[in-house]
Amino acid sequence: MVVQQLMVQQGLRYRLYKEIVPEARLRGISPTNLFVVALVLLSFLFLALETEPTLNAQAEWRQVFRAFNIFVVAAFAVEYVLRVFVAGLNPAYSGVVGRFRYMTRFYAIADLLAFLPELVVMLAGWGVPLVALRVLRLFRLIKLARFVPAFDIFGAAVKRARTQLFTALAMAMVLVYVSAVALYFIEGVGGEHQESFASIPRAIWWAIATLTTVGYGDVYPITPLGRMFASVIAIAGIGVVALPAGVFASAFSDELRERQDVKEKAEAHVYSAQAERSPEGEVPLPGEPGDLDN
Amino acid sequence: MVVQQLMVQQGLRYRLYKEIVPEARLRGISPTNLFVVALVLLSFLFLALETEPTLNAQAEWRQVFRAFNIFVVAAFAVEYVLRVFVAGLNPAYSGVVGRFRYMTRFYAIADLLAFLPELVVMLAGWGVPLVALRVLRLFRLIKLARFVPAFDIFGAAVKRARTQLFTALAMAMVLVYVSAVALYFIEGVGGEHQESFASIPRAIWWAIATLTTVGYGDVYPITPLGRMFASVIAIAGIGVVALPAGVFASAFSDELRERQDVKEKAEAHVYSAQAERSPEGEVPLPGEPGDLDN
Amino acid sequence: MVVQQLMVQQGLRYRLYKEIVPEARLRGISPTNLFVVALVLLSFLFLALETEPTLNAQAEWRQVFRAFNIFVVAAFAVEYVLRVFVAGLNPAYSGVVGRFRYMTRFYAIADLLAFLPELVVMLAGWGVPLVALRVLRLFRLIKLARFVPAFDIFGAAVKRARTQLFTALAMAMVLVYVSAVALYFIEGVGGEHQESFASIPRAIWWAIATLTTVGYGDVYPITPLGRMFASVIAIAGIGVVALPAGVFASAFSDELRERQDVKEKAEAHVYSAQAERSPEGEVPLPGEPGDLDN
Amino acid sequence: MVVQQLMVQQGLRYRLYKEIVPEARLRGISPTNLFVVALVLLSFLFLALETEPTLNAQAEWRQVFRAFNIFVVAAFAVEYVLRVFVAGLNPAYSGVVGRFRYMTRFYAIADLLAFLPELVVMLAGWGVPLVALRVLRLFRLIKLARFVPAFDIFGAAVKRARTQLFTALAMAMVLVYVSAVALYFIEGVGGEHQESFASIPRAIWWAIATLTTVGYGDVYPITPLGRMFASVIAIAGIGVVALPAGVFASAFSDELRERQDVKEKAEAHVYSAQAERSPEGEVPLPGEPGDLDN
Repeated sequence: MVVQQLMVQQGLRYRLYKEIVPEARLRGISPTNLFVVALVLLSFLFLALETEPTLNAQAEWRQVFRAFNIFVVAAFAVEYVLRVFVAGLNPAYSGVVGRFRYMTRFYAIADLLAFLPELVVMLAGWGVPLVALRVLRLFRLIKLARFVPAFDIFGAAVKRARTQLFTALAMAMVLVYVSAVALYFIEGVGGEHQESFASIPRAIWWAIATLTTVGYGDVYPITPLGRMFASVIAIAGIGVVALPAGVFASAFSDELRERQDVKEKAEAHVYSAQAERSPEGEVPLPGEPGDLDN
Repeated sequence: MVVQQLMVQQGLRYRLYKEIVPEARLRGISPTNLFVVALVLLSFLFLALETEPTLNAQAEWRQVFRAFNIFVVAAFAVEYVLRVFVAGLNPAYSGVVGRFRYMTRFYAIADLLAFLPELVVMLAGWGVPLVALRVLRLFRLIKLARFVPAFDIFGAAVKRARTQLFTALAMAMVLVYVSAVALYFIEGVGGEHQESFASIPRAIWWAIATLTTVGYGDVYPITPLGRMFASVIAIAGIGVVALPAGVFASAFSDELRERQDVKEKAEAHVYSAQAERSPEGEVPLPGEPGDLDN
Repeated sequence: MVVQQLMVQQGLRYRLYKEIVPEARLRGISPTNLFVVALVLLSFLFLALETEPTLNAQAEWRQVFRAFNIFVVAAFAVEYVLRVFVAGLNPAYSGVVGRFRYMTRFYAIADLLAFLPELVVMLAGWGVPLVALRVLRLFRLIKLARFVPAFDIFGAAVKRARTQLFTALAMAMVLVYVSAVALYFIEGVGGEHQESFASIPRAIWWAIATLTTVGYGDVYPITPLGRMFASVIAIAGIGVVALPAGVFASAFSDELRERQDVKEKAEAHVYSAQAERSPEGEVPLPGEPGDLDN
Repeated sequence: MVVQQLMVQQGLRYRLYKEIVPEARLRGISPTNLFVVALVLLSFLFLALETEPTLNAQAEWRQVFRAFNIFVVAAFAVEYVLRVFVAGLNPAYSGVVGRFRYMTRFYAIADLLAFLPELVVMLAGWGVPLVALRVLRLFRLIKLARFVPAFDIFGAAVKRARTQLFTALAMAMVLVYVSAVALYFIEGVGGEHQESFASIPRAIWWAIATLTTVGYGDVYPITPLGRMFASVIAIAGIGVVALPAGVFASAFSDELRERQDVKEKAEAHVYSAQAERSPEGEVPLPGEPGDLDN
């Protein structure tokens, strides 16, 4: 993280910076950003409710959805403008060129996509099929990621255990495929000629439902031989198919613990550094994390 | 735990204190309290049986339920009165004011709620809808907590791993939501227009049933594309959704082991302390645990 | 284990002792005992097949079952007589009194129950309902335990982790009960008045099927509120209900590892002891394990 | 691994050797071999699609399948000839006798079986039932194993934990059998005389579906007593039945980690050895791994 020290520019912009740039705070989240997070979460709740036919059929609910959508788009638009405005306080993004550089960053683009498409449709009054548009709201997830740094832990965990994950996944795939081929021959080609086992892809659906222990019950062997095979596969195979998930969970947990340790040490360091410098009145103004730039 | 040493007040009240205050014993449980525990457990069994229509339709069973309920309410009322009576032995709760202080403690309130509402209804002979009243019996669980200190371990385990739990839960929620959105578009909007995937909330129900591997089989994808997505989600996602449960289980287990160690050491210490003091005839009279005082 | 050294009594009885007493061998299993194990396993296979109506309806299969049963009963009777006969080589069971002492041991009684009831019925030609009789064949499992010492590991594992197991089970029970009460009110009393949630015991069946992730799909919530509760319960609760199983599995695994270490050391010791004594021509004659005596 | 040093024979054969013998590369995979791997994976995809009736009913898809099969058989035939051709560079397989020795190796036989049967049928134009023939394509899995050495990790993991696996499996089997016998008597013989519990083998199918938590929902107890037993079995038994899978997964994971360590050390050693020798212009020509020679 690049931490730049600026001469403090007193005024609205600086107060705004402290309020909306998450890195300007050592811990916790500012009221404004908490509001943004709440709005994102609410927008996911409303996205879900909006698709429910029993609610969407009622005029009052449609009214509520409409009003909420307008409010959210407006709020995110204002937030975007403010973020671009205060970004100039960071020397890396000052001036017009700096602002453009800021706007091409990953988080800035996500902020834009979180409201622009719906804003355009609203202003233009187009009769666009809204369904496709709604998917774009998933970009709002990235807004959350800004406040929950652990969100990028997902990729880090995969990277940490990639060899083990790859081998475990390969073993699981082989087991699923071989189980499916076996049951295809036993239940689909022979046996009672079950429709659900009439091809290998269909048998793969059974194998995955069984080996992950989901077991919907839409497909299952009915011949004694098929059940015998399925039993052996279930007992022997559950461990193998659960392996990738277990490897990932363990890597995720390790990564999380490590980061917490690093964070605690970093905080201890920043606090002590601050304590030293405070007599001189210097205030560190941390930039946004460099490793997340575009 | 605040251990007060009192001049021993010989008599009924002191013998009762030794019998019904769990902290008056270093280990084990007194016969009276064992009876209370058995009564609580039995009352949960009867609460369950009472709701069963096939039993409730029979007059004999209704008779049994009625008699048992009267007995339990009476027993718990007597127990409550006795507990308030002996509480005075503890200097913190002596006198009328002390008794009131005792009665506002968490456990004392739970003891009261365990019988009072039903007692009032019984005495008044009201025709109150009993169903709502029955829920109040769940307060009897707290009576158990007095004897099984591990019951508050639940909260301690959550606290111990709260950061990890929060991150793991957040990841799980995101996975559930994104899976639901994907299957909503594939199976609900497109595909065979399945009713069960016709909205995101319905698809969330599927996603949770699948990712926890419960798999009731009331909802499942039927299009090839939906099944392909569901397969990938099942294999990749089980580890993520199992993560919060795993984190909690591990914290629970750690907490339990730690407490057992502490308890063993504490007991060893009390025993040796007692051994030292016994010549002077002093008897330690431990109060109820201070950290549980409401 | 009491290891007695006897003057070697050359002859049939000694050779038999070496052949059928498992402790007379340092490792592995004698051909005779392997045959006994195979017979026990086969008898379980036949017990299973015998109950299958589609097989039992065919005269040839009934013939096979009948012949096999006669053979097994005869073989186990012969085995029992031989075991009693050679037991006399062990000073603890020599003479008529010793034999009676041998016959009251746990394993000897199991050996007797493994064939006597069916032998009596066969000889008497009674038309006893065979079904009840068949259950007694489960005693043959104990015959296996003689050769697989790890079978008593089950109890040892429970004992090793009993406090943790008890707490974990109590938590799981509370969760199951509270979940069932919640869904009973939501789906049974209110909601669509589902038959499957019409009482707490029925709701407990749902709660167990869900929280163990078995999810048969015979019972599931259908109201939005019920599904919301069920989702929360599923995600939060799976870890809690899996806890007892996890605790047991871990204790089982620890116990197993420990025993293997002990066994390896013991073997190394016996071998080196044998190597030392062999010049003197002494052959150690180990008795049956003392801790298993009745 | 036997590493022979040969005088470098410049020319096509040597370049081919470097290209297609996986051991000739320290890490990574050559373009040619990547193509072979892709072809094997594609052939499994096509094997699956080919069995799907909805695709196979369309003439265009049949055309695609036919063309792909011809291409794959031809490609694997060419690959086989090339592998035999370049094997001569390895002194162990030089000359006609050496080539025959090469051709009787495990991987070489698998390479042959991967194309020969289908080639023969194609050339002869026989109307052989293709279904049986398709199973032979599973031999192509072994082609993959050449490039993913971790594939033989399966057997190594089983061997590493064989005692624990055996005991865990035995316990699981006993639990499954005893559960099945109990439910057979409760639900099949007594109770509602459910067809699905009418014999022990049928009850075993239920026991496995329940104890592995697959829970298809095709079979479940319906009597109160049966449900009570099933609940106890589910809560107590899941840990036991999951034990073999857990033991295997843990052994698999340990084996994997160990191998990675060994591999990293070996690579470090080879690299440093190369660095030393390079001035003399010697190029090590590693043979195929000796421990895999049939």
